Amino acid sequence: MKNYLFLLSIVFFLTASVFAQSAEKAKNEIRKVMDAQAAAWNEGSVEGFMQGYWKSENLVFVSGDNVRRGWQGVTDNYKKSYNTRAKMGVLTFSDLEITILSKDSAVVLGRWKVAHEPKDSQGRFTLIFRKFKDDWKIVHDHTS
Amino acid sequence: MKNYLFLLSIVFFLTASVFAQSAEKAKNEIRKVMDAQAAAWNEGSVEGFMQGYWKSENLVFVSGDNVRRGWQGVTDNYKKSYNTRAKMGVLTFSDLEITILSKDSAVVLGRWKVAHEPKDSQGRFTLIFRKFKDDWKIVHDHTS
Repeated sequence: MKNYLFLLSIVFFLTASVFAQSAEKAKNEIRKVMDAQAAAWNEGSVEGFMQGYWKSENLVFVSGDNVRRGWQGVTDNYKKSYNTRAKMGVLTFSDLEITILSKDSAVVLGRWKVAHEPKDSQGRFTLIFRKFKDDWKIVHDHTS
Repeated sequence: MKNYLFLLSIVFFLTASVFAQSAEKAKNEIRKVMDAQAAAWNEGSVEGFMQGYWKSENLVFVSGDNVRRGWQGVTDNYKKSYNTRAKMGVLTFSDLEITILSKDSAVVLGRWKVAHEPKDSQGRFTLIFRKFKDDWKIVHDHTS
């Protein structure tokens, strides 16, 4: 009986450890997606920035009282709002809190800031990420 | 071989059907939580409304550029902002789009409206629900 409990606790420990490792791996992958987004933005590429989003008509982007849908529509809207390099300014993401919900879904709370003249813009976002094959993509963005 | 493929397709069909049924069940449970929230609010009970939220210090409530944390803090804030029955007005939730992410997590996009004098308030929300034992609770609310 003692041996059985000992074995059981080892199995339990290993399972918990594998889960923690894969959650840590997922968090790193998500951080990389967001780093690549900020880097693309700061090179002046809206298209590059948009690679972090799900390329689907079902992408959801909520801001204020508006819901925009679809990768193309969100891309077009960004291109319209930030139609010069100066307007794009310098984007930074900070205070990221990534919570893994399941093996293929996660939620990210964070802060965005666009530094530009005459006044910086900033706010918070909640992102839902889903894993498609090997890639984590934002499927739902609520920005305020 | 034919029989094998036939059996396999039945198993596949049954699995898909069970999954669809349990997703539908989860959506109904989540709708019930939100119906109960609106009903409690409209009876003047902030505490009743707050039963839909995770009773934890880790509850996240994002609005504009603010992040509030913890069930008690969110409750106190609601009580402060809506300190009379007249201010509470009549709350309705509409346009709910519930997406099941896993067996114990879901995201809800929707619209809220508080009808009161002199002017109604309204906006959108993204909610992350998680299932705890038998109950679905909001663990993260981003309202704008």
